[in-house]
Amino acid sequence: MADLVLQWDLELRLEKVRAVMEDSKFDALLVTSNANLFYLTGMVINGYVFITQENYFVFVRRPVGLKGDNIHYIRKPEDIPEILQSLGVPLPVQIALEEIDINAAEFERLSKGFEGAGVSGGSGILLRAREVKTPLEMEFLKRTGQRQAEVYKLVPSLYEKGMTDLEFSAAIEHGFRKRGHIGFLRVSGFRMECYMGQIFAGDNAAAPSPYDFALGGAGLHTAFPNGLAGIDITEGTTVMVDMTGNFEGYITDMTRTFRVGEISEIAYRAHNLSLEIQKKLSQNFGEGAVCGDMYNFAYEMVKEQGLEQYFMGGDQKAGFIGHGVGVQLNELPVIFPKNRERLKAGMVIALEPKFVIPHVGAVGTENTYVVTKDGLECITVLDEDIIELI
Amino acid sequence: MADLVLQWDLELRLEKVRAVMEDSKFDALLVTSNANLFYLTGMVINGYVFITQENYFVFVRRPVGLKGDNIHYIRKPEDIPEILQSLGVPLPVQIALEEIDINAAEFERLSKGFEGAGVSGGSGILLRAREVKTPLEMEFLKRTGQRQAEVYKLVPSLYEKGMTDLEFSAAIEHGFRKRGHIGFLRVSGFRMECYMGQIFAGDNAAAPSPYDFALGGAGLHTAFPNGLAGIDITEGTTVMVDMTGNFEGYITDMTRTFRVGEISEIAYRAHNLSLEIQKKLSQNFGEGAVCGDMYNFAYEMVKEQGLEQYFMGGDQKAGFIGHGVGVQLNELPVIFPKNRERLKAGMVIALEPKFVIPHVGAVGTENTYVVTKDGLECITVLDEDIIELI
Repeated sequence: MADLVLQWDLELRLEKVRAVMEDSKFDALLVTSNANLFYLTGMVINGYVFITQENYFVFVRRPVGLKGDNIHYIRKPEDIPEILQSLGVPLPVQIALEEIDINAAEFERLSKGFEGAGVSGGSGILLRAREVKTPLEMEFLKRTGQRQAEVYKLVPSLYEKGMTDLEFSAAIEHGFRKRGHIGFLRVSGFRMECYMGQIFAGDNAAAPSPYDFALGGAGLHTAFPNGLAGIDITEGTTVMVDMTGNFEGYITDMTRTFRVGEISEIAYRAHNLSLEIQKKLSQNFGEGAVCGDMYNFAYEMVKEQGLEQYFMGGDQKAGFIGHGVGVQLNELPVIFPKNRERLKAGMVIALEPKFVIPHVGAVGTENTYVVTKDGLECITVLDEDIIELI
Repeated sequence: MADLVLQWDLELRLEKVRAVMEDSKFDALLVTSNANLFYLTGMVINGYVFITQENYFVFVRRPVGLKGDNIHYIRKPEDIPEILQSLGVPLPVQIALEEIDINAAEFERLSKGFEGAGVSGGSGILLRAREVKTPLEMEFLKRTGQRQAEVYKLVPSLYEKGMTDLEFSAAIEHGFRKRGHIGFLRVSGFRMECYMGQIFAGDNAAAPSPYDFALGGAGLHTAFPNGLAGIDITEGTTVMVDMTGNFEGYITDMTRTFRVGEISEIAYRAHNLSLEIQKKLSQNFGEGAVCGDMYNFAYEMVKEQGLEQYFMGGDQKAGFIGHGVGVQLNELPVIFPKNRERLKAGMVIALEPKFVIPHVGAVGTENTYVVTKDGLECITVLDEDIIELI
């Protein structure tokens, strides 16, 4: 099912999940969402992973042809307890299921399948385990950050005068895609939807959106109201490019800002403040830092410059300036004011202090960072100045 | 919130939902998935639609700024019962929630919010209501089918000798995208994931996949194992292009097959059989036809030609030859052997009888059809021969 390095890394992930399970009230965890199956097995299957402190089994419906000691083919999830019993594995007293990652119908069905067992929510266990990355995950993320930066380097060359935001985005998406972006992006939460990333031209950056991203955007259609709006890119405005890197199932997040013609002094001031915030946070907040303190530190810098009204949106503002990334775009921890969680070495977070300047557009950058003992190490390294599109 | 034509069409959709509700045991339906909110309001919001036979309310968290008689802003779903009471609306005795479309955590939370009420699954109500399209939905779908066919016409010109399947797909995706494809694709079920569509070069069409699409494909990475595999397109093989049309939130589904060099006689025979099956089904099965009969009729034609072993996949075969389309790619009805459901005029279904020929690849086409009194009307009209890529 996997090569040796991956196999060894999967063992580490399993250990992390088991360590979090130790502190919980349940004795088994049954996983069946694509994101968590990929985390635990290195691939997406239509099936289930069953974990206790002593046992680990993979139950597969599709695809055909997988082989391994702990792999069992099933027709339906109700087969699982039967197989466990035939293997002499005691049925769980209290089982955890992914309440955030699977739909209510599946949750109900699995609950009934383990008749007599108590049922708890298990999504939090996996979110916690996934916060700190394993060595192989770190390798994937660093490599993805590099590949993402290489495509970003080409972005100015993809622009042609007179392009709409849609045409420009299509060209950038094409640039990512033909270099191996897997396209599809996993986002946590049934309300979130995303297509490779977003670009914001001019005032569209201030358009409110139903989605919980850092910025909104009207979208091409009310069917998918976020990001680009199918509008002209006009003189004197910015184009913010917020595309994802995702070549091996691990996502890095990166934003750069471009301009057409001259933009106002205040736009430059806000942009430089975004860079300064990231620099200061990288230097002053590493392992052990409190997430909420990071937000508040950044917000103080914004207040000092009197730029609060432009910070993190227009009329509708995001309540966070950063978030974990990994197999999903929006992992833990989230960097918002009241979050008392502390950073751990090996977490990977994206920081995106952004500003929306009326009549100009969005400014600022976003980078993905690895949390270290001493601070934050950027893994999406590329010039951060506002580049003119010509 | 919407123009007059849309407003009138939304009334029809609401009537359809209420008609299905009449036969159910619950007195209220609370909707909060993006697909169903879009269906009911014409836009995606972060919020809820509350429906009874007498009342209709929209409760919104995001975006800011929506206005309308029946629109109320809320901070959290627990505010809804309070607002209903303040408006003199009786609280439901039995409420239905979307058990397929929302996660278990949200289902649980909403259930608790309506304390004292019984709770049922309501996803089926919406799936049933959405089966038969309204006039405006039909207009969207027909226009989308036309726009999709226009892009498909360009596909041969997007091919360059020596391209990998990834490069070819990236060029086709780019062709769709810059012509206004909204990119993101709604699929029902938490296990399904899709990126604009799929292309299959040669034997990759036979690679088994965990996803429940008509064909598999290894994918670029185990993180997203379906469709293109990052391989060369080689002489003597086919490339099947199965991309979606989605310009206004309504999806049409269409497949055409291309070839590089000469392919075997049996590949042509299977391809022509796919066309013949669609022709016969279009002529013989309209309003009132039983879905399972359609499948069985098609399968008899396949048996007559002795092509069963190639039908609908390689080692792993799909169990259906068609499915409804609309705001989601996989709607009702599904055309599988045991489905006793009858076609209704105004349903929109995609038919995709496909074959996978070893050492050649996938052949056949797919079209989207409107069910009429007399048969099926194709809305993705374009030449269906296998076109040579040069």
